[in-house]
Amino acid sequence: MGSGHDVNLIDNISMCSHDLLDPEEFRRQGYMMIDFIADYYRDIEKYPVRSQVEPGYLSKRLPESAPYNSEPIETILQDVQNEIIPGLSHWQSPTHFAYFPCTISTAGFLGEMLSTGFNVVGFSWVSSPAATELESIVMNWLGKMLELPKCFLFSSDKNINEGSGGGVLQGTTCEAILCTLTAARDQMLNKIGRENIGKLVVYASDQTHCALQKAAQIAGINPKNIRAITTSKATEFGLSPNSLLLTILADLESGLIPLFLCATVGTTPSTAVDPIGPLCEVAKRYDIWVHVDAAYAGSACICPEFRHFINGVEDADSFSLNAHKWFFTTLDCCCLWVKDPNALVKALSTNPEYLKNKATESKQVIDYKDWQIALSRRFRSMKLWLVLRSYGVANLRNFIRSHVKMAKQFEGLIAKDKRFEIVVPRTFAMVCFRLKLEMIFDQKLHENDGINRIEDQTNELNQILLESINATGQVYMTHAMIGGMYIIRFPVGATLTEERHVHSTWKLVQEHANTILLGALDGNIIDHEMED
Amino acid sequence: MGSGHDVNLIDNISMCSHDLLDPEEFRRQGYMMIDFIADYYRDIEKYPVRSQVEPGYLSKRLPESAPYNSEPIETILQDVQNEIIPGLSHWQSPTHFAYFPCTISTAGFLGEMLSTGFNVVGFSWVSSPAATELESIVMNWLGKMLELPKCFLFSSDKNINEGSGGGVLQGTTCEAILCTLTAARDQMLNKIGRENIGKLVVYASDQTHCALQKAAQIAGINPKNIRAITTSKATEFGLSPNSLLLTILADLESGLIPLFLCATVGTTPSTAVDPIGPLCEVAKRYDIWVHVDAAYAGSACICPEFRHFINGVEDADSFSLNAHKWFFTTLDCCCLWVKDPNALVKALSTNPEYLKNKATESKQVIDYKDWQIALSRRFRSMKLWLVLRSYGVANLRNFIRSHVKMAKQFEGLIAKDKRFEIVVPRTFAMVCFRLKLEMIFDQKLHENDGINRIEDQTNELNQILLESINATGQVYMTHAMIGGMYIIRFPVGATLTEERHVHSTWKLVQEHANTILLGALDGNIIDHEMED
Repeated sequence: MGSGHDVNLIDNISMCSHDLLDPEEFRRQGYMMIDFIADYYRDIEKYPVRSQVEPGYLSKRLPESAPYNSEPIETILQDVQNEIIPGLSHWQSPTHFAYFPCTISTAGFLGEMLSTGFNVVGFSWVSSPAATELESIVMNWLGKMLELPKCFLFSSDKNINEGSGGGVLQGTTCEAILCTLTAARDQMLNKIGRENIGKLVVYASDQTHCALQKAAQIAGINPKNIRAITTSKATEFGLSPNSLLLTILADLESGLIPLFLCATVGTTPSTAVDPIGPLCEVAKRYDIWVHVDAAYAGSACICPEFRHFINGVEDADSFSLNAHKWFFTTLDCCCLWVKDPNALVKALSTNPEYLKNKATESKQVIDYKDWQIALSRRFRSMKLWLVLRSYGVANLRNFIRSHVKMAKQFEGLIAKDKRFEIVVPRTFAMVCFRLKLEMIFDQKLHENDGINRIEDQTNELNQILLESINATGQVYMTHAMIGGMYIIRFPVGATLTEERHVHSTWKLVQEHANTILLGALDGNIIDHEMED
Repeated sequence: MGSGHDVNLIDNISMCSHDLLDPEEFRRQGYMMIDFIADYYRDIEKYPVRSQVEPGYLSKRLPESAPYNSEPIETILQDVQNEIIPGLSHWQSPTHFAYFPCTISTAGFLGEMLSTGFNVVGFSWVSSPAATELESIVMNWLGKMLELPKCFLFSSDKNINEGSGGGVLQGTTCEAILCTLTAARDQMLNKIGRENIGKLVVYASDQTHCALQKAAQIAGINPKNIRAITTSKATEFGLSPNSLLLTILADLESGLIPLFLCATVGTTPSTAVDPIGPLCEVAKRYDIWVHVDAAYAGSACICPEFRHFINGVEDADSFSLNAHKWFFTTLDCCCLWVKDPNALVKALSTNPEYLKNKATESKQVIDYKDWQIALSRRFRSMKLWLVLRSYGVANLRNFIRSHVKMAKQFEGLIAKDKRFEIVVPRTFAMVCFRLKLEMIFDQKLHENDGINRIEDQTNELNQILLESINATGQVYMTHAMIGGMYIIRFPVGATLTEERHVHSTWKLVQEHANTILLGALDGNIIDHEMED
């Protein structure tokens, strides 16, 4: 940079600094944005659920550099409508059944607005006390709704630094796992010496979310020591305590050191449930930290009829669920409870001079910066608080139940069409299904090609079916592989989904199945009498 | 959980599921919330800047459990006003000069609303293409504004997976450092063997943000191998390349392996600048990954007159700044550019079956999940895009300049009062100052107690002064220690700050200095003629 720039030190001014946040202009543009988003929800069914754009579409539509001068909000909103919306896959669409839901609600949105509006940074208690205190309170509220054992909650009458458990809001499950894994790792290394980091072993089933693998890699666990223990249909793809035990014993035999187990309640591929109690029973014999990842299904456990899926959690060390998945708060909001916050604090605390303050020194307060990866943190409890208060426990349970009910209806529809199978029993609000080739082809083909060939063809057919459905833009579903089977996942949970969407989706699935079976298989299909 | 619950399977219903997001109710409540926040900004000077509550205040005011039934938004907003606002330290107050600013703007707020409203999860390109593509475009826009070398930007004509650099939005600097450090670590361990993880060394100055220490701890670097190299007033608390070299040589001598250098442009204690070019020159001799943390001061580098502070960045491997600090986007928004995204991807990618898709397989798209810790990610580029477009380059530069100008004014006011000193030269928009005891006490006290005693007393006096000022609730400033000196930090940057706030703050500082010097020092003060 030469001194030639000096002559241009003040660029042409068209605004003064307070124009950044003039309350009345904020109000005017804020209304406009509320209208824009309300209209978006009203019209959301007009848009293809899965975006139809090609890679690189947006760079062809936007300039290569930022504008030198300001542009009016009206122009920008027009561009959002014309250039951005076509490139979105609409997660809030009532026929978005891809991945897991990422639910929104009016209350969650309003809470996020408040959090953004205050824009406080609650790293320490003193930096904005309400941000810390509301989070602790709300985590206790939700913990009680889940009937979490008291050892996971803040105790009201005890010094928070002495033996009480507690909850914290993280961004995502990966962060929650990374924090607890780091705590477990340092606790262990302090006992056995840092030089043994290469011997530490992390356990999970082969159905466990990739967040565990990533967290373990980041935390410096040797990738060779991340065990993805095979599951099977026999246990409905839940982790068998006996398999865990055998794996641990083999590792001990090899001189390795068991460290951490991630048990899942509601796996991503098929919402399988690892049996927490029996797994803890094994893990605790070897001093293994047990984290329970209930990212998706944890929300259902506020309903008494689902609570039993987390039985045994009292023996785990930490428990998390993603409120942004199926609890109507917006992304991101991962709720983590730990029995021993001090283990987190020991691994994650820093105490620079510029953050020292009397409240921290008094040890009467929580500084959540020491419970997470980052220093800065958003006021996430606000949205969770608004969701809990705006809807109340009774309604929240019923919203969850209405999704389960719709998933049951979809299950019922599938059961009537013998060309399809439900691959694993539905546990929560997700149905895993596929076209079943054996039912379709005649026995001859079966004999000629053998079971493996049939499996491959079944997988391929379902892949074609899914792509064909998604290409319509009318619904969006995604797949998983379990036990070698390509399955189509159908999780109900998007806030706007109603029964009619479940029915229209099933109709679409059937139509595409008809076309594909007729076309691709060239007449080899059994003449199947559809009952629906 | 007994079966007794079965009779209550459906809780009393007062709402149905679509009430969670009825567009018209969303509109009504949305307007209400816009009004609430607009009024908050209008009235913000009414509130004590630093909250005056005592630890535990909120649990005395809120119930112990979540409500069973829904509560109206009007009641909740009343509680926000009465129970939450008193517990906030108001970061958006024009007299909030604590820590670093965490700026907001109307455009940043609106962008966050859009991001929340769409609530898409852009982990992979296919999961919502616009989220990925807008992020890449906006990171190039901002990179060009900073005149980052091309090797940090996406090239328009090349396959993004072949040799192009690029930018990504992280939540915070700690995440950015953790990701780059993990990439550097794995790149090195792949060469030298994983068993050497305990030998890796991380370098920074003693002024570096605690984010580095935390990231290194999480990544499994031996805490003994985190070097905080001493700085001094002689280099204005910037890291000396020679000190770095000596430290590296000593480590090599001990059989350790240099890995990572975090150089800072605008340190937290005093906005010191590490000389990037000369530091890279040293580091690159030893194959050390250099990350440049310009969390605070990076924003200023969009102004040609500040750009020289990041000269030499072309030799670094990664560069980050926090747009949520001094760039008018809301928390959180950390901009990270890397020369070699593949290093990140190798360390952080996971490829589970349930996320496989054709776009990823084509290698024509970015899946940002592989550039960060978490899988899920918010649509953060939306707010950065709105800020860039709503204000334009010219205004953004001038907003920054207006803050620098106000800091200069404050500096000028201090300079006229000989009881105070400016501890280090002001570089950006932060002034570091303190009461200077030598100027106040007579020579006798000085001789009796010696230099150290004077330093201690000066530190204590400034601590008392700062606490006394903050206790008024009229302004909020925080401190740092540099070179053994307790200093008061005065960063200008809050969006609503105007010149009158700078003047009133200085008046308050003087008033409290008067009282403290008169009262606490019991007549030992030189009769100082204030010039202001």
